[in-house]
Amino acid sequence: EAPAQEQEEQEEQEMRRRCQRFMAPPVSGPRELWRRRRDMRGRMELLIMETQAEVCRALAALDGGAAFTVNTWERKEGGGGISCVLQDGNVFEKAGVNVSVVFGQLSAEAVQQMKSRKTLKDKDGKVPFCAMGVSSVIHPKNPHVPTVHFNYRYFEIEEADGTKQWWFGGGTDLTPTYLNKEDAVHFHKTLKEACDKHDPKLYPKYKKWCDDYFYIKHRGERRGIGGIFFDDVDSPSKEEVFQFVQSCAKAIVPCYVPIVKKHRHDPFTPEEKLWQQLRRGRYVEFNLVYDRGTKFGLATPGSRIESILMSLPLTARWEYMHTPPENSREAEILEVLRNPKDWVH
Amino acid sequence: EAPAQEQEEQEEQEMRRRCQRFMAPPVSGPRELWRRRRDMRGRMELLIMETQAEVCRALAALDGGAAFTVNTWERKEGGGGISCVLQDGNVFEKAGVNVSVVFGQLSAEAVQQMKSRKTLKDKDGKVPFCAMGVSSVIHPKNPHVPTVHFNYRYFEIEEADGTKQWWFGGGTDLTPTYLNKEDAVHFHKTLKEACDKHDPKLYPKYKKWCDDYFYIKHRGERRGIGGIFFDDVDSPSKEEVFQFVQSCAKAIVPCYVPIVKKHRHDPFTPEEKLWQQLRRGRYVEFNLVYDRGTKFGLATPGSRIESILMSLPLTARWEYMHTPPENSREAEILEVLRNPKDWVH
Repeated sequence: EAPAQEQEEQEEQEMRRRCQRFMAPPVSGPRELWRRRRDMRGRMELLIMETQAEVCRALAALDGGAAFTVNTWERKEGGGGISCVLQDGNVFEKAGVNVSVVFGQLSAEAVQQMKSRKTLKDKDGKVPFCAMGVSSVIHPKNPHVPTVHFNYRYFEIEEADGTKQWWFGGGTDLTPTYLNKEDAVHFHKTLKEACDKHDPKLYPKYKKWCDDYFYIKHRGERRGIGGIFFDDVDSPSKEEVFQFVQSCAKAIVPCYVPIVKKHRHDPFTPEEKLWQQLRRGRYVEFNLVYDRGTKFGLATPGSRIESILMSLPLTARWEYMHTPPENSREAEILEVLRNPKDWVH
Repeated sequence: EAPAQEQEEQEEQEMRRRCQRFMAPPVSGPRELWRRRRDMRGRMELLIMETQAEVCRALAALDGGAAFTVNTWERKEGGGGISCVLQDGNVFEKAGVNVSVVFGQLSAEAVQQMKSRKTLKDKDGKVPFCAMGVSSVIHPKNPHVPTVHFNYRYFEIEEADGTKQWWFGGGTDLTPTYLNKEDAVHFHKTLKEACDKHDPKLYPKYKKWCDDYFYIKHRGERRGIGGIFFDDVDSPSKEEVFQFVQSCAKAIVPCYVPIVKKHRHDPFTPEEKLWQQLRRGRYVEFNLVYDRGTKFGLATPGSRIESILMSLPLTARWEYMHTPPENSREAEILEVLRNPKDWVH
């Protein structure tokens, strides 16, 4: 019994050390997290907390000006979250990295949203659930530094007959104001490498899913130049999907930080800033009209609105009938948003 | 026959004179409009064209800087519209006044949207329809001049069994950045007078409907200080509802123009401009997340996106966790948006 107990103690100490590097104490508490260290709920919560800390540190170091404001919040129906926001920095206009771990009963309205993904046996329209994830939108000031978004999430639900279902979802995608082919290739290649470690079929499949998902139908254009997106993934096995999600989460910083470093001091004109503001308007259109996460959040009672809408840019602009001139750099990015490209072949 | 023919000719000349004062030739053409002059479709098209011209002239005179750009557009499925937009003027940041007259078959998706209003007998999910209206959003530059919105519309549909249904909808509402009680009373009183001419029950009913409709649920606040709003109105009679709608349309200029005149030269601080930008963000949230007209438009194939989204402000802002200080003028308007007031008693 002695070596097992020793190992337990070491693991508990190790968990305490890991928790100290988080932006705030984890929603479930360090003790509960340690107890669940071999369950997926514990392992995923650890991963999202570490991802949040890693990304926030990298961004704060790049910015050099403002620091992250950390807010922890509780959901009275169960669970809570940690919102980290850096606003009006040197490099970033608004950067939010949010973790949430929520559980309880899904309302009829939320069940409806879930049912578009899964067919469920519910009990009086109520389904016990647990949802956790890390999500982030980073809007830089300089129009030559692209906006990035990522989100990795894990769901568990229990049906009326006791069947448990679980699935992962997530993705990382880039929204540049101007096209830089080198950056696009770097971003997609880094994602492809993370995917290829697990299955060479994943990148092409999730790249296309991303182009399809971030589609602003009424504009006939995508929100950005894509990346990867997946949802409802529950095969080949819980362990394998988790390993894949972990690789994606580890790829966030190498995907994005080199691009920020390269362009954060690029000179720009007022016209370029204006085009950025118009693109920000499209970002708002996608998020408020189409994004399932935003719609799900706004319709879920007890969700924290400030955390959900932290994805919106600090400023945005809508001009009536704005059309960039032919052969301009503005027309170049629009062309790619209308007809997504293959960046890695 | 001679006097009748003479009267016809006089009426045709009169119609031509009226059409010349429009911002553009009417969608149905002057000849068709004259032929339909005794039908509701003709009378309503005339009213919306005259309302558009009257409002655009009044706003252009107030602005003194920019002029209205007029765009006519056709919908290949039937009908078209006239969009008038004044952008970046002296007084107005963005003012759009749009007329549309569309007809054809409603798609299954659009029928679904309609069905929340009326139960319909459709034929393979298709319903012949005609919809026309004038709609406008006017965003001024000065934070002491409120934003106004109005919309007056008429629908006709034909069910599978040949039954024709018709109804009117509409409203006028005000969205100030700062509360000015005198303006609020003037605005609501002018609307009440227009309503009272027809039935004293209308103003209280439609005032409440307006407060309920322009509710940003996820924020727990209304978009503005209200006005009137109504939909699905098909009683007491087509004639009486039209007369009421006409009174409302004639009340737009007296509701709004005096308020603009009073405040267009008010001095303002950068802090006041910032608060206006944050309120514009809320305006965007309402329009993209909740507004039925916008959602209907974005989901209707062949609709003109630029005309639908001309309701969005030129610029908007989202700050994470912005809370105005207690007893500030910012907190004063928030209080009214959270708890609508009775302005006329």
